[in-house]
Amino acid sequence: MGNVNDKPGAVRTGRRPGPSSTRDEILRAARRRFAEGGYDRATFRSIANDAGVDPALVVQFFGSKQDLFAAATATPVTLAELSAQAAEDASGGPGLRLASLLMMWLEDEGARQALLGRVRSAASEPAAADVVREMIGAQLTEFAGLMDGDRPDVRASLLATQFLGVVFARFVVGVEPLASMDGKEIASWLGPTFDLYLSGPLDDSS
Amino acid sequence: MGNVNDKPGAVRTGRRPGPSSTRDEILRAARRRFAEGGYDRATFRSIANDAGVDPALVVQFFGSKQDLFAAATATPVTLAELSAQAAEDASGGPGLRLASLLMMWLEDEGARQALLGRVRSAASEPAAADVVREMIGAQLTEFAGLMDGDRPDVRASLLATQFLGVVFARFVVGVEPLASMDGKEIASWLGPTFDLYLSGPLDDSS
Repeated sequence: MGNVNDKPGAVRTGRRPGPSSTRDEILRAARRRFAEGGYDRATFRSIANDAGVDPALVVQFFGSKQDLFAAATATPVTLAELSAQAAEDASGGPGLRLASLLMMWLEDEGARQALLGRVRSAASEPAAADVVREMIGAQLTEFAGLMDGDRPDVRASLLATQFLGVVFARFVVGVEPLASMDGKEIASWLGPTFDLYLSGPLDDSS
Repeated sequence: MGNVNDKPGAVRTGRRPGPSSTRDEILRAARRRFAEGGYDRATFRSIANDAGVDPALVVQFFGSKQDLFAAATATPVTLAELSAQAAEDASGGPGLRLASLLMMWLEDEGARQALLGRVRSAASEPAAADVVREMIGAQLTEFAGLMDGDRPDVRASLLATQFLGVVFARFVVGVEPLASMDGKEIASWLGPTFDLYLSGPLDDSS
């Protein structure tokens, strides 16, 4: 998603001036490093190098690696917001609409990198897993607050884990057919599952 | 799952003798290291040290790290076998039975470590992701072969990714409520989803 303040037709050539653009540049570099190599390999040095700044500046801006990780992989949109948006749309079922929004959101490189950065880093580094647990916990609580059925906490977390599993298979491992299917087609298969989680009878034991 | 050749009532005290037990000891140590720290941190040295052998012996037995990884995280039971077992059982729906078998299978420490080793290693190391892609691809093809509906390949992969997402949330990130729920309770919530994937109408767009 481009910068909305860019002039129409302006060609973006490298770094923009000003202190906030340096911060953004570091965040972009960090997001890419966390997404591609995971926590251990995303060193202050490699991130600073990608951003064209001194490693000391990265430390000055963000303090600890854990804080840099949290800032770089924060996502601008929450599950609850997407779900509210899906509920307003009149076409198709709510599950299909939410699945479509999520798959569409993944097409944005920054969003995908933030998510992959979280997955790869949580998988190998407990400090990163702590950050991710807090981020996801907050999102799930908010998302569950929108649901009516019994055990909204379980429903919200199962929907999120189905999405996470697809992301892992599609982008981390590259499992077929999920790796090469069209995002829209995956969304159409996820729709009925999401409807089940959003409002269907779930617990077989009750 | 214990060794079926153990005498009933025999107490297993540490290492068993013979060359095959050294190999097993290395595999157990490797499985634990891959599960706990991921690919990068599971060094030949640390694995050899845990197994009480020389690092050169690990190399002699397994050659490359990729081969050691494949051997250590191979799982003795496949999705297709569990699914066939679930189909024979007469209690509950097939989805619930398969979910129960999978959650029960996770209670075994070796099985859980093999799976976590795959997840953590694939997330941070492309060479490990290649191994995992092959392993999962073979399992999914076999599993899909048991299904009747349209697009069994998509159904098999979505069921597997839902399970993987739960494993990731429960054991890697520790997301609530999945982290502390009873395995049987999680299975009862997964049952209807698995039924949908095994035999329900899925694709919303068709």
